[in-house]
Amino acid sequence: MQSKWEENVRRVTPYTPGEQPKDTDVIKLNTNENPYPPCEGVRKAIRDFESGDLRLYPDTDSTELRDALAERYRVKQNQVFLGVGSDDVLSMAFLALFASDKPVLFPDITYSFYDVWADVYKIPYKTVPLDDNFRIDPDKFNQPNGGIVFPNPNAPTGVLESIDTVEKIVNLNKDSVVIVDEAYIDFGGVSAVGLVEKYDNLLVVQTFSKSRSLAGARIGFAIGSRRLIKYLNDVKFSVNSYTMNRLTQACGLASVLDEQYFCDTVKKIIKTRERLKDELLSLGFTTTDSKANFVFASHNKLRAKEIYESLKERKIYVRYWDKPRINNYLRITVGTDEQTDKLIEALKKILGERGVLNERS
Amino acid sequence: MQSKWEENVRRVTPYTPGEQPKDTDVIKLNTNENPYPPCEGVRKAIRDFESGDLRLYPDTDSTELRDALAERYRVKQNQVFLGVGSDDVLSMAFLALFASDKPVLFPDITYSFYDVWADVYKIPYKTVPLDDNFRIDPDKFNQPNGGIVFPNPNAPTGVLESIDTVEKIVNLNKDSVVIVDEAYIDFGGVSAVGLVEKYDNLLVVQTFSKSRSLAGARIGFAIGSRRLIKYLNDVKFSVNSYTMNRLTQACGLASVLDEQYFCDTVKKIIKTRERLKDELLSLGFTTTDSKANFVFASHNKLRAKEIYESLKERKIYVRYWDKPRINNYLRITVGTDEQTDKLIEALKKILGERGVLNERS
Repeated sequence: MQSKWEENVRRVTPYTPGEQPKDTDVIKLNTNENPYPPCEGVRKAIRDFESGDLRLYPDTDSTELRDALAERYRVKQNQVFLGVGSDDVLSMAFLALFASDKPVLFPDITYSFYDVWADVYKIPYKTVPLDDNFRIDPDKFNQPNGGIVFPNPNAPTGVLESIDTVEKIVNLNKDSVVIVDEAYIDFGGVSAVGLVEKYDNLLVVQTFSKSRSLAGARIGFAIGSRRLIKYLNDVKFSVNSYTMNRLTQACGLASVLDEQYFCDTVKKIIKTRERLKDELLSLGFTTTDSKANFVFASHNKLRAKEIYESLKERKIYVRYWDKPRINNYLRITVGTDEQTDKLIEALKKILGERGVLNERS
Repeated sequence: MQSKWEENVRRVTPYTPGEQPKDTDVIKLNTNENPYPPCEGVRKAIRDFESGDLRLYPDTDSTELRDALAERYRVKQNQVFLGVGSDDVLSMAFLALFASDKPVLFPDITYSFYDVWADVYKIPYKTVPLDDNFRIDPDKFNQPNGGIVFPNPNAPTGVLESIDTVEKIVNLNKDSVVIVDEAYIDFGGVSAVGLVEKYDNLLVVQTFSKSRSLAGARIGFAIGSRRLIKYLNDVKFSVNSYTMNRLTQACGLASVLDEQYFCDTVKKIIKTRERLKDELLSLGFTTTDSKANFVFASHNKLRAKEIYESLKERKIYVRYWDKPRINNYLRITVGTDEQTDKLIEALKKILGERGVLNERS
């Protein structure tokens, strides 16, 4: 029986993150983590950290980390907003910048947290269909709205839109805030950061979780106009003054300072991704031309769900959604070359056992 | 000139945290930090932390830390909710549990973040006056409401209410959620955690920032009925799946496991607090009988604001609010004995220079 106090409870359907198996024996290609460790500077920052300092609150403005990001992205410090992963940044942006009665627009196939944030903050929204190749038609975003958000490259498809397409959407919507969610931009796309000087309604969101191997540290950031960042900070400081803990700030700073390691790691992942695409193709899969650290693949004879389950039995975790338009696709994180070998080997066995190993292979 | 997109911005007045001077040369008694470092286990947890693991997302359920807290507080794991400091926990609780048109009630003198959360989430609220001794009258909370929240001991007064008073408020309000904010309970109060089995509408919130010397790590938690914790988690997982980073989880676990250090540290602070009260009394101050890690004091001849500013000139930071009823009080964090000596010495000079050093001294 429901108690009376339960009438005051906000009822929501939370986002379901990818499984995090406790078993360390698995090949984990399901949550787009980086297969390589963070840079040596991060290790050093932790080793040299003075634990006694934890008795003190952290710098609420994360000054050093924001300064480093501002320098790296050639913007001013007051154009950088920091959060506990890009999910925190996006959540704050929904709360702060989409306070309209008009619907927020996002693609029908997209990061599945957008509608969850809209629901929890009671923001109306409307999805805009991607075309049959999972591409965005900018003109479809030319309609009344209370804000726009889309990932570029898109998730879970990996499809990248050109900077011209991004600019067209921003330009068509100068009366609302446009958020470009660039969680995967470092793996081959051109960032919209270069456009923030021109458009004060553009917010670009990125994360340390993928290209910087720091998913476990929780760092995301946004770059935008001074005014946008001020509004974001006003709401953030109305929710929690101290979100970025001391250790995380130290790790983040060390990561930004090692540009070479960042570039090398990204290059390795891109190389493995392209090889993975080729191998999948030869096994009878079709894939999008992903520019992210994952591949989005569908087999021409075997249902994605069956492959997903068979891989899981073999302790290889990939991501599958039983959702319209994408329920015959797998999203496979790009791992190390060794992990990729094991994945391909497992797929060959699964397809072979069912007699659907493609002739091309 | 305002752009059209700015019409969609949520306008708020953020909370103002205590100053965090960059100067390390100051005596910082303004944000109720613990003057002692966290336990040795925390140092070890950081030293032994495998930085390569940061490439992976943290355990979204913080299983080990929640298990340890459940054992420590003799509840079940599904009765424990974790957040990025108790501010994060309280913010989530406002969002999740106060979704009513009726006003949320809290004392007129209280933690100054409550009205900020109410504003940002558009929750109506009403303050309930404390009596002249800053005490809560439970009967004044016997009125229609959409939820109740109060700190015990109260901040910034330090006044502790008995567990009977707390139970009376909860008992009078079984139709709404009652949150007891116990940030300072470890310094001499009886926690309401023992009541959560009896009242499924009671949420008890605590923090690692004060008694556990981990303000810089950002850990807060709530204990309540299984149903309350489920509702809180549903909203939390609709905002951000991964909030507790790997390093913080490791530090928090180490802290909970060292009960002896926790007890010893708390005892030292209580001893210094009582000495500080006596010394202030002999200098012509009146203080509340604070049961927190701070003292709330007013001088009988010199205005609090002047003392606050004079102390700051001498590099001693305490907290002052220019707010009704408390604008002649200072909130002084209990530091080490050495810091207390320096504070008393500085106060003697300030009072002496103005010829208002109390005869009793």
